[in-house]
Amino acid sequence: MNYEDYIATIPDFPKKGIMFRDVTPILENADVMNSIAQDMAAFARLNRADVIAAPEARGFLFGLPAAMAAGLPFIPVRKPGKLPRETVSVEYDLEYGTDTLEMHKDAIKPGQKVLIIDDLLATGGTVAAIEKMLEKMGAECAGFAFVVELDDLHGREKLTNAPVLTLAHYKGE
Amino acid sequence: MNYEDYIATIPDFPKKGIMFRDVTPILENADVMNSIAQDMAAFARLNRADVIAAPEARGFLFGLPAAMAAGLPFIPVRKPGKLPRETVSVEYDLEYGTDTLEMHKDAIKPGQKVLIIDDLLATGGTVAAIEKMLEKMGAECAGFAFVVELDDLHGREKLTNAPVLTLAHYKGE
Repeated sequence: MNYEDYIATIPDFPKKGIMFRDVTPILENADVMNSIAQDMAAFARLNRADVIAAPEARGFLFGLPAAMAAGLPFIPVRKPGKLPRETVSVEYDLEYGTDTLEMHKDAIKPGQKVLIIDDLLATGGTVAAIEKMLEKMGAECAGFAFVVELDDLHGREKLTNAPVLTLAHYKGE
Repeated sequence: MNYEDYIATIPDFPKKGIMFRDVTPILENADVMNSIAQDMAAFARLNRADVIAAPEARGFLFGLPAAMAAGLPFIPVRKPGKLPRETVSVEYDLEYGTDTLEMHKDAIKPGQKVLIIDDLLATGGTVAAIEKMLEKMGAECAGFAFVVELDDLHGREKLTNAPVLTLAHYKGE
């Protein structure tokens, strides 16, 4: 399946000069969604993941279907104040300022292997922050899976050496 | 399957006096997730839904799996500024102030029947706002599906007469 056929490119969004890669057409096609979930589930099995984690909101759209297809637990990574039980958090840098992500502390056990899924790998700030959270919890990163990767932004350089699955590559912004 | 067994109750979150119903244990069990997706997909078929729509972020966790199980398109409902194509938006009241939700204008065609899914029905403000957006688009509400309903908050009174599926009932906050 040629996933690029289901990714729209919107020029100048959210600001002038950015080519936005829009995955919403994928969501409108259950066959494409099921195919992506199966691809990511296979990658989870190959890398012996025990758990799949993904950040809100767009990461939920691919992480949870992959976890269901793989028969694995899904752990949501959220903005501060959203998760009701005790959390582990990590702060990370944005272009301007910082942001914080949280995970339930009891969601992942020390030694577990966690596959991190997001819709898009750009500069890698979000998923690198999740990797740091896993370290804090004594867990291991089993790998990363993305629908889209913007190759020119070199997000992979922010990640450890865990294997990466990308379904559609684009040059950059 | 007794879904209540997979819903945690966290007292005094996000503030004193609120009993928070936490659906994250459901996400950690792929069998429970698949069962919920199948229940909601059956409800979509029974009510002849053409499309499933759900609001970020927790609505995504149940709306998209249901759409995949039903073989229907999934339409994300988002906060302002997140969707790159032309949108339809609606403002709605919160306890303090207002909030706005958006949908891609080309996502739903006039006359289509849309099932609205969210994790939880409390006062009903969010899903009532989505129903208003459907009206603006000339589409019809096929029904509503929730994992949790807080019966004492009377959210149903804010909705039209479309059928409602709720998988787990609780008294109130």
